[in-house]
Amino acid sequence: MIYWDNNATTRLAPGVLDAMRPYLEEEFYNPSAAYPQAKRVRAAVEKAREAVAALLGAYTDEIFFTSGATESIHSALAQFSSFVTTTTEHPATLRVAQKEGSALCPVLPSGLIDITAWGNLLPGHEGASFAVVNHETGVIQPVQELSDAALRAGVRVHVDAVQAAGKIPFALHDWPGVVFASVSAHKLHGPKGVGALYVRRGAIFRPLVLGGDQEDRRRAGTENVPGIVGFGVAAGLAAEALKNQPKFYDGLRDRFLNRLRAAGLELAEQGTGAPRVPHVVSLRVFGCSGEALQLLLEAEGLLCSAGSACTSSRPEASHVLRAMGLSDTAAREVLRLSWNRFCSEEEVDAAADTFIACVRKLRSVQGTHTGPVVVYVPEHE
Amino acid sequence: MIYWDNNATTRLAPGVLDAMRPYLEEEFYNPSAAYPQAKRVRAAVEKAREAVAALLGAYTDEIFFTSGATESIHSALAQFSSFVTTTTEHPATLRVAQKEGSALCPVLPSGLIDITAWGNLLPGHEGASFAVVNHETGVIQPVQELSDAALRAGVRVHVDAVQAAGKIPFALHDWPGVVFASVSAHKLHGPKGVGALYVRRGAIFRPLVLGGDQEDRRRAGTENVPGIVGFGVAAGLAAEALKNQPKFYDGLRDRFLNRLRAAGLELAEQGTGAPRVPHVVSLRVFGCSGEALQLLLEAEGLLCSAGSACTSSRPEASHVLRAMGLSDTAAREVLRLSWNRFCSEEEVDAAADTFIACVRKLRSVQGTHTGPVVVYVPEHE
Repeated sequence: MIYWDNNATTRLAPGVLDAMRPYLEEEFYNPSAAYPQAKRVRAAVEKAREAVAALLGAYTDEIFFTSGATESIHSALAQFSSFVTTTTEHPATLRVAQKEGSALCPVLPSGLIDITAWGNLLPGHEGASFAVVNHETGVIQPVQELSDAALRAGVRVHVDAVQAAGKIPFALHDWPGVVFASVSAHKLHGPKGVGALYVRRGAIFRPLVLGGDQEDRRRAGTENVPGIVGFGVAAGLAAEALKNQPKFYDGLRDRFLNRLRAAGLELAEQGTGAPRVPHVVSLRVFGCSGEALQLLLEAEGLLCSAGSACTSSRPEASHVLRAMGLSDTAAREVLRLSWNRFCSEEEVDAAADTFIACVRKLRSVQGTHTGPVVVYVPEHE
Repeated sequence: MIYWDNNATTRLAPGVLDAMRPYLEEEFYNPSAAYPQAKRVRAAVEKAREAVAALLGAYTDEIFFTSGATESIHSALAQFSSFVTTTTEHPATLRVAQKEGSALCPVLPSGLIDITAWGNLLPGHEGASFAVVNHETGVIQPVQELSDAALRAGVRVHVDAVQAAGKIPFALHDWPGVVFASVSAHKLHGPKGVGALYVRRGAIFRPLVLGGDQEDRRRAGTENVPGIVGFGVAAGLAAEALKNQPKFYDGLRDRFLNRLRAAGLELAEQGTGAPRVPHVVSLRVFGCSGEALQLLLEAEGLLCSAGSACTSSRPEASHVLRAMGLSDTAAREVLRLSWNRFCSEEEVDAAADTFIACVRKLRSVQGTHTGPVVVYVPEHE
């Protein structure tokens, strides 16, 4: 089985569970307690904070832990009386924007934010928010340019760095306009249920979650200690791996696509006009229903996504692809394939061969461009 | 080492980590994904929901998972434009109340909510909130009476059931006035970083955390699957243990206190005029600084708490005890000892002997009623 849905979630990196285990067993103490056993647990939380700060290029006291990126994003957006965001954001941002009636900046067909529209929309808002890396296409936004524009307009920026952290090298301190940033552990081979929010030193921050004095009074509630420890280890491993970037990904996407093209598949990549992370491809196979193809691939042991995981239970065309100008029909022909840093050339070749076989199978039961076909899939256990 | 700080957090019950482990390893999939591997993960989440619902006496569709009780409490209180609460609540409630300028109902010296004041304060508010079991004293509130009064006044009730769930038998459906309830896994031998909110069927609920469609659109964000699974197993085990209630606690508190009294210790229990959970004692040792005694006990291997864990890093007298009418001096002489359902008579006897020895040691270095003494404690590793 080949898991190519790493933008939805990732498997724990080797060593992460081993690091978590003591805190799930004998080191179960509440880090807020006064006894030395609890202080050891507190120290483990602080060590994890250092690792996450190092990965993000931030000071340790700028990082606090949350239950995940969705909470982090909410905490950041709650700082703004009004904010600008974009049409291609993750639902965690977009639904807050819809509720608040925020301004939505369009993107170009490449997926890049329309910088002119961005500049025009900023004045009069308190905040701005965008994803460094798009969750569906892997498109990397020009953070420097976008956050500098915000800085000039006196607008504070939050970046959703969920799909960027541990995947591409960056340092939050390189972007003076970025005041808040959200990350998630489970997208970078850490555990689910833990994330972090970066708050630039000196920034005003009103906590979303009040109560105990945890996390420097920025986020109350007993800490998810095993999750935090796992996050720290995963962040450290990702930082280490990034030093060898882009070696561990290099050429894999081209290798995959070349093999598909050599087999005569008619394909279109999304976001080709933009810089992209090297482990994601948003791929349209002309005339093939993405949903049907995903089902066939799944049956053949290649797991991927038609639309992002958060919306895949709803039969709607991806809002990201629609915002990039794809028609509803075109957007429904797109699959997202996302591998990880442990991927090998052999895995890429096997995935490509499965992909080719499934497209051919789908074509054999449906004529080209004849629209969606109902694929019978036996009930799984 | 004897851990008697179970109101701060608990060790995982046997079997909980084993149940979590697959979801930390091979079953790492995002439960929102479309493939059958993800649907198995989704099924595990739903099984956990059934176990938590069963423990709380609720329908499965009334339970949704959160990152912990602090978040649950925030989600519930966010439903009210204004609410009444009490002076002895946990900081997670009290700090929201302070921010919102909520009405604070006083308690009697027993720790029980003043029902007359409660009835008078309710009208004109949209909500009311109180803890079923107090986190410091173990006092059990008369939920039926308090929530019936609210029902009559047209006020919706949230109960903080963190210290009650899995400790005393109850069914939320027995209390028609209770619309929301918050619980935490790590207080009942489940993992940290996961909790639940009960929302009565038919109740209007506006989510605090928006984004993906998780948790019936009531709480967005990728589910903390291992945490949720662990919560489910812990809830099932607690429900099973409660069937034998109060056998597993019966007489332990009296056994402990009788041994202390037989040794001539001058003691005062808090909350003696109220029903209390059987595994907590809030104990004043006359003339002994709680903080100093806690340090000595810790050095002798008995871990307990002077004040609740959430506030113990701040040298303030407990607001709960102050609200019950204790002077600042008296409140500073109180320790909270909280054991669990795995506690044996042998453990109680050993704890009592340690306690007696430490009080004597403290008395030998300080005269009775001479105020706090500085105890030198060597730096721990």
